[in-house]
Amino acid sequence: MNPRVVDIPASLIRSVAAKKKSTSVDLGLGEPSLAPNMEHFTFAMEAVAKHGIKYSANAGDHYLREAIARYYHYPDMHRAANVCVTTGSQEAMYVTLKTLLDPASDELLVVEPAFPSYVKMATLENVAVRTVAMSEEDDFAIDADRILAAIGERTRAIVICSPCNPTGRILSRSQAQRLVDALGRRSGPPIWLIHDEIYREQTFTRDAGYLAELYPYVIVTNSLSKSNALTGLRLGWILAPHEFVEQAIKAHAWVTSCADTFAQHVALHVFTTLEGVREHAPWYRERRADVMNALQQSGLRFIPIDGSFYACVRLRDGMSSLDAATELIDRHDVLAIPGIAFGPAFESWLRLSWVAPIDRVREGIERIAAYCRL
Amino acid sequence: MNPRVVDIPASLIRSVAAKKKSTSVDLGLGEPSLAPNMEHFTFAMEAVAKHGIKYSANAGDHYLREAIARYYHYPDMHRAANVCVTTGSQEAMYVTLKTLLDPASDELLVVEPAFPSYVKMATLENVAVRTVAMSEEDDFAIDADRILAAIGERTRAIVICSPCNPTGRILSRSQAQRLVDALGRRSGPPIWLIHDEIYREQTFTRDAGYLAELYPYVIVTNSLSKSNALTGLRLGWILAPHEFVEQAIKAHAWVTSCADTFAQHVALHVFTTLEGVREHAPWYRERRADVMNALQQSGLRFIPIDGSFYACVRLRDGMSSLDAATELIDRHDVLAIPGIAFGPAFESWLRLSWVAPIDRVREGIERIAAYCRL
Repeated sequence: MNPRVVDIPASLIRSVAAKKKSTSVDLGLGEPSLAPNMEHFTFAMEAVAKHGIKYSANAGDHYLREAIARYYHYPDMHRAANVCVTTGSQEAMYVTLKTLLDPASDELLVVEPAFPSYVKMATLENVAVRTVAMSEEDDFAIDADRILAAIGERTRAIVICSPCNPTGRILSRSQAQRLVDALGRRSGPPIWLIHDEIYREQTFTRDAGYLAELYPYVIVTNSLSKSNALTGLRLGWILAPHEFVEQAIKAHAWVTSCADTFAQHVALHVFTTLEGVREHAPWYRERRADVMNALQQSGLRFIPIDGSFYACVRLRDGMSSLDAATELIDRHDVLAIPGIAFGPAFESWLRLSWVAPIDRVREGIERIAAYCRL
Repeated sequence: MNPRVVDIPASLIRSVAAKKKSTSVDLGLGEPSLAPNMEHFTFAMEAVAKHGIKYSANAGDHYLREAIARYYHYPDMHRAANVCVTTGSQEAMYVTLKTLLDPASDELLVVEPAFPSYVKMATLENVAVRTVAMSEEDDFAIDADRILAAIGERTRAIVICSPCNPTGRILSRSQAQRLVDALGRRSGPPIWLIHDEIYREQTFTRDAGYLAELYPYVIVTNSLSKSNALTGLRLGWILAPHEFVEQAIKAHAWVTSCADTFAQHVALHVFTTLEGVREHAPWYRERRADVMNALQQSGLRFIPIDGSFYACVRLRDGMSSLDAATELIDRHDVLAIPGIAFGPAFESWLRLSWVAPIDRVREGIERIAAYCRL
């Protein structure tokens, strides 16, 4: 067998989550608790009843590709040819890394704390990985200078998740500008920026930097999973310069052939509906205010929530996040994700999702605060 | 960029198919023309309306995995733990090759004529490929001795599509037994058999060998695409020994995370319905008889159709299949796939699909026969 597959360790997040009981306060969940809008599904059902469910083009349905590109309307990336529709943003990121990086020579730089998938995928592809940790003192703000200082000779791409899973921080406009200005001044082959925008519709600041507005070598990955409570639909996309998309489509064609045609109909309806990908955004904005209040009252140190549906709280000095998460679920019936899952810089932290009913979220935060006071 | 992606050539099949006009007789299509059974979709809609559409476990819904394993009921492969649900059989094959073969040491043996994806996927993964051609004199019957003679020192897996795309031949029971007997007598690490069963429900002989019934080192890939006219649904699976499935789930988890939950509901309904994956089988059986008649009347040399929804006809000696397919679409308005797309052994052949309306299929066969008489 392939040693790179055999060597993949079991997921830390899943092994903690597996301890959840029916009574548990679940602050672990990385998916929306809202119900999806069934109108999108009704549209897709009508399309299937009328036309059956045929393969789409490898790159996805032309009208959907066009609708996605037009909606985001990034410079030089606003045409159908800039989009490859994928099986969720997971395949979007997988195909992006596979297409962009030559295992023989290239290195990926991952901005941490980060969701483990980037490092895992690169390792699976035999691509070298370097990580750069944002500063705890600065509440893990996404810092251009730290990222730039970490670039190595072989670094060909940098992956940034903003709004960030787990920290909830957002790359600011000034930091985004600082980053691309410095990259633009470099000689030699360009360094690509991969912007994972999966939590874009959970943005609670007016100061969000969008890399694709500022720099030509940007690949955006996204999906309907978080914006429209459609995690199980597996409908995502790559949005990038045409020359890159053309290559990515070829890798995508051999990995999964094409995205689900039913899911593409759902997505087409989302993108041609007035509220579209923003239909759940007001709910997150209101809920975020309640959660910020609960955090302030808890006495816990927490990271300001710029975006995403996570809140991160700090454990006492010297506590292991895995031990804490294990004790919390075993003794206090609260599921939280240990920071170590997102890189060593996040060892003293817990990630809490706040999509459960608000009373349960408050209860969970109180139990964690009590545990930290023990 | 990754040279293995950049170097992927454009698809020959797609470049010929792109010449199709609205008037063309389409014998190129590799997907059913039947309408899907909407009852499966209604069931899935009700499930989404009630429960939303959440991520499933990486390996797929437990009840679906169980239903698939029970339905095929291969020895030691009839439990949920033997199934990984995937994004179509394309991802099933991709994940299988990625998991099974170590690019540093292993080689894949592909039985040709074969659909191009096996060679392309292995090349993308930097896995060495060897091919073995079945004999034209023997109408490309799947021949155990030829396969066995082609095994090299580094061969760790053999991929066989039966019923075969493109030839329509089926591995017989005696040849299957001969193959596994010889493999079982070998010393050293086992050679795995990958059985692509995508056309299983288009089987027109009582003498079909199922490798998973005979040998412990078999990985079966399949999907609902061809059996239930659900190509666009992207719902497939890997069926294999538990130890292999456990590793494949890890690769699958990082490639696409999990299969579409809606599609899994559709599939669960298929597998728990009386006709299930056989619901379209009678149509193909009747149609195949009509097509065999048309072929016999045409005067063309053709391969007996054991299975699949393809018929293959021979060109005149020395004709290039790509030239013939190009002339046929350009001058005679018939789309057929050139044999060279399936390996050099199939250079003198055309693959015709017979899912178009029967009068059109007859018309297409007559035009090809007339062209070959020119």
